[in-house]
Amino acid sequence: MIRTPDWVKHAVFYQIFPDRFARSGRVPVKDGLSLKPWGAPPHEQGFQGGDLYGIVDRLDFLDELGVTALYLNPIFASAANHRYHTYDYENVDPLLGGNEALRELLDEAHDRGIRVVLDGVFNHASRGFWPFHHVLENGGNSPYIDWFNIHDWPLNPYAPDADTPHNYDAWADLPALPELNTDNDEVRAYIMRIARKWIEFGVDGWRLDVPYEIEDSDFWREFRKVVKEANPEAYIVGEIWHEAEEWLQGDQFDAVMNYPFLWPTLSFFGSETLRDYKKTHLTFEPLDAPDFADAITDVFEMYDWEITQAQLNLLDSHDMGRALWIMGEDTDALRLSVLFQMTVPGAPCIYYGDEIGMSAGDDPHCREAFPWDEHDTWDEDLLEHYRNAVALRHDHEVLRTGSIDIFYAEESVIGFRRELDDTVAICLFNAGPSSAVIDLDAEDVGVPLRRYESAWPEGDAPLDLDDGLVTTTLPAQSARIWT
Amino acid sequence: MIRTPDWVKHAVFYQIFPDRFARSGRVPVKDGLSLKPWGAPPHEQGFQGGDLYGIVDRLDFLDELGVTALYLNPIFASAANHRYHTYDYENVDPLLGGNEALRELLDEAHDRGIRVVLDGVFNHASRGFWPFHHVLENGGNSPYIDWFNIHDWPLNPYAPDADTPHNYDAWADLPALPELNTDNDEVRAYIMRIARKWIEFGVDGWRLDVPYEIEDSDFWREFRKVVKEANPEAYIVGEIWHEAEEWLQGDQFDAVMNYPFLWPTLSFFGSETLRDYKKTHLTFEPLDAPDFADAITDVFEMYDWEITQAQLNLLDSHDMGRALWIMGEDTDALRLSVLFQMTVPGAPCIYYGDEIGMSAGDDPHCREAFPWDEHDTWDEDLLEHYRNAVALRHDHEVLRTGSIDIFYAEESVIGFRRELDDTVAICLFNAGPSSAVIDLDAEDVGVPLRRYESAWPEGDAPLDLDDGLVTTTLPAQSARIWT
Repeated sequence: MIRTPDWVKHAVFYQIFPDRFARSGRVPVKDGLSLKPWGAPPHEQGFQGGDLYGIVDRLDFLDELGVTALYLNPIFASAANHRYHTYDYENVDPLLGGNEALRELLDEAHDRGIRVVLDGVFNHASRGFWPFHHVLENGGNSPYIDWFNIHDWPLNPYAPDADTPHNYDAWADLPALPELNTDNDEVRAYIMRIARKWIEFGVDGWRLDVPYEIEDSDFWREFRKVVKEANPEAYIVGEIWHEAEEWLQGDQFDAVMNYPFLWPTLSFFGSETLRDYKKTHLTFEPLDAPDFADAITDVFEMYDWEITQAQLNLLDSHDMGRALWIMGEDTDALRLSVLFQMTVPGAPCIYYGDEIGMSAGDDPHCREAFPWDEHDTWDEDLLEHYRNAVALRHDHEVLRTGSIDIFYAEESVIGFRRELDDTVAICLFNAGPSSAVIDLDAEDVGVPLRRYESAWPEGDAPLDLDDGLVTTTLPAQSARIWT
Repeated sequence: MIRTPDWVKHAVFYQIFPDRFARSGRVPVKDGLSLKPWGAPPHEQGFQGGDLYGIVDRLDFLDELGVTALYLNPIFASAANHRYHTYDYENVDPLLGGNEALRELLDEAHDRGIRVVLDGVFNHASRGFWPFHHVLENGGNSPYIDWFNIHDWPLNPYAPDADTPHNYDAWADLPALPELNTDNDEVRAYIMRIARKWIEFGVDGWRLDVPYEIEDSDFWREFRKVVKEANPEAYIVGEIWHEAEEWLQGDQFDAVMNYPFLWPTLSFFGSETLRDYKKTHLTFEPLDAPDFADAITDVFEMYDWEITQAQLNLLDSHDMGRALWIMGEDTDALRLSVLFQMTVPGAPCIYYGDEIGMSAGDDPHCREAFPWDEHDTWDEDLLEHYRNAVALRHDHEVLRTGSIDIFYAEESVIGFRRELDDTVAICLFNAGPSSAVIDLDAEDVGVPLRRYESAWPEGDAPLDLDDGLVTTTLPAQSARIWT
């Protein structure tokens, strides 16, 4: 029987790119270093100096937003500002405050009931990773030669030109990213030790970077075993951009990053304003309600219900343009997308800064510094909307773990029912630019004949289904939810 | 007023090259690694897999030998078998067992009253040191650019040929060894933090590698302050091969590795059998007793008496041929050298394996694996001699901290007096190939008229100076000590 952590089903996540979220001034080592100014244009290289104490300083802000879990992009020692190029899995990057800073973040977050999930990059390390350095210095005399798949000698990770390419397995053929030889027992043991170590340290789960590159189900079964032994409630969520059934049989991951959730969502709610934007595995093209209903039903029915409830439902991430940007700066479309995200199964994940209206294209642009000191750039109304939408989810268990059925999908309007024991929620979204008049029949909706109170907008008129039939009007780009 | 740690004055050190001393079988990470066989010819590269648990396993052997302090060649993470190329100052090398192994070694050694001094390599790191890797990956976008002295871009540590030399300050112009920019406040703070960290961890002192390369007395004054604040009894001993007065004024080092002690000693006791061996700063040429007396007097009078008692008196090290090899395999000459080392001021240091007759030339040859399982190769008599000579020193405080005066130096015989309060020791060494008859006059010797018991050889005839004059005979290559 498949089991996923209950807390995830009730969580609202917030994704943080650590170099750009908040700078604390509490990491002394940075005093004398040449960092880029906070808010500098985000380039492929350059460090703006966000750190984990900075996150601690903003936990109250996140708590107020309703966040109950953080997903942090990689934090282990790395020479890349995104830190996907690990050189030391045992230590949090010094620029982020080191292991002490993670200790404080975990303690402070847990005190507020906020969990913390780390990014685990186990397919490849960096050419600065110590065993790779060891092989580079010693060649065949290094005892670590079997930690990598080396084609010939001498090792050539810093090729001066294209005539002398790297000669070892590297992720995406990038010389900077030597792949770990996970067929080697010692390498496996090393990764499993790292996986266990940080869970035992207090981390609440792992988001796994490019796990499909380790084509070895036994590896991931062992990984799950190790992690769940350390903490049965730890969350394991893989970065898979497409259908991921092979990893979601209950013996490998709890869930995946739900990219298949975001493209129909943004395509439907942003259908009037979508940019011409492409991304592998994601298709952004205007969708009407019937097509959206089909696509999103697939998403919710693709896996076991236990998995579906634990999916990480995102609208964007560090690896793509921001949702607001993709939807052509249409804030109303973003509002509806967020509200939709908060009313369907799966843990919503907010990409840092989306809630104040940050908008930017593909990475590295979408990795901007959070403008804490420039409040005039914040969309305070949007922020308030996020808080309300998150609060709505927290207030209604039925929106989190209730079953979902779409009972209406015409033109630009979609309607669905959430149901948990004796509780139901009736949700209507109008993505279109004009108001829509909808006839509701309790039988079609699948709910008992009674009166339903408005949950969104708060204080709005109730839905009177005592007689089984009612006609309701949805303004352009609006939603109504009754329970 | 100059003060050095009292324990050093009474200590007998044992120097260990960790990759070659003992392999425990208790470092699981090594199970799947391609190590060289134990006892393989020691080359510049290649790991034989000694570890710190291996030292723990041999502490009883060392205790029986009379050792009260260990000086370990570098143990921090490094891709070189000698580990002078540090890539991580915060962690003991995984092959050595990591920090847990050092914890156990310190605890077990301290339980036996054995102190542990580490090798601190602070002038240069390695090109695998993470801030250097950081600069290599990010160029001018790395915040660590001022941690090194970089001449131009792009950084070129892995030059494919001589036409593209490295372009940063490197020790001895070796690209593998970028020098740390110790003028940078952050680098200083980093080094000071490392220096403090390991003393607080329980280490009893630092042997400083090439400290003369950091030409900055303030740096070393700060270093002393930091170390002594963490433990006022910590020992600071610099690797200076020549006169070192500038560092020995009481505000920088406690002592230096006493290379000026070894060349006259080996030259005198090995004068008949010396190999034609050269080493910068060291001159190995046959010495007669008067020349030896002059040279060794200089050694004992070169510095404040507090320093002299704390000097690390060695006969050889990992950086040169072994004493037995230099003296042309003349074991008797080695025996006398060791006994002399045990009867003069300064802490004697035994280079691992010398005590069982290991003999080899310059490094890397002198870094052989200790043949624990090949007892037939051990010189057991020599080992017994070492034990007795060390015990002699421990039994007689006068041999450790008594004043020293040479009263006799003719042909191949040297005689000196040690004196501490009411105790004296009269020491006679005959380095020559024939027996020597010596007339002793109590007044010349500078001792009261009385009878002196034989301390070496044990149970030998006493020296009767009741009448002030006595004639004694010293066999070829022998010594006699009375107290």
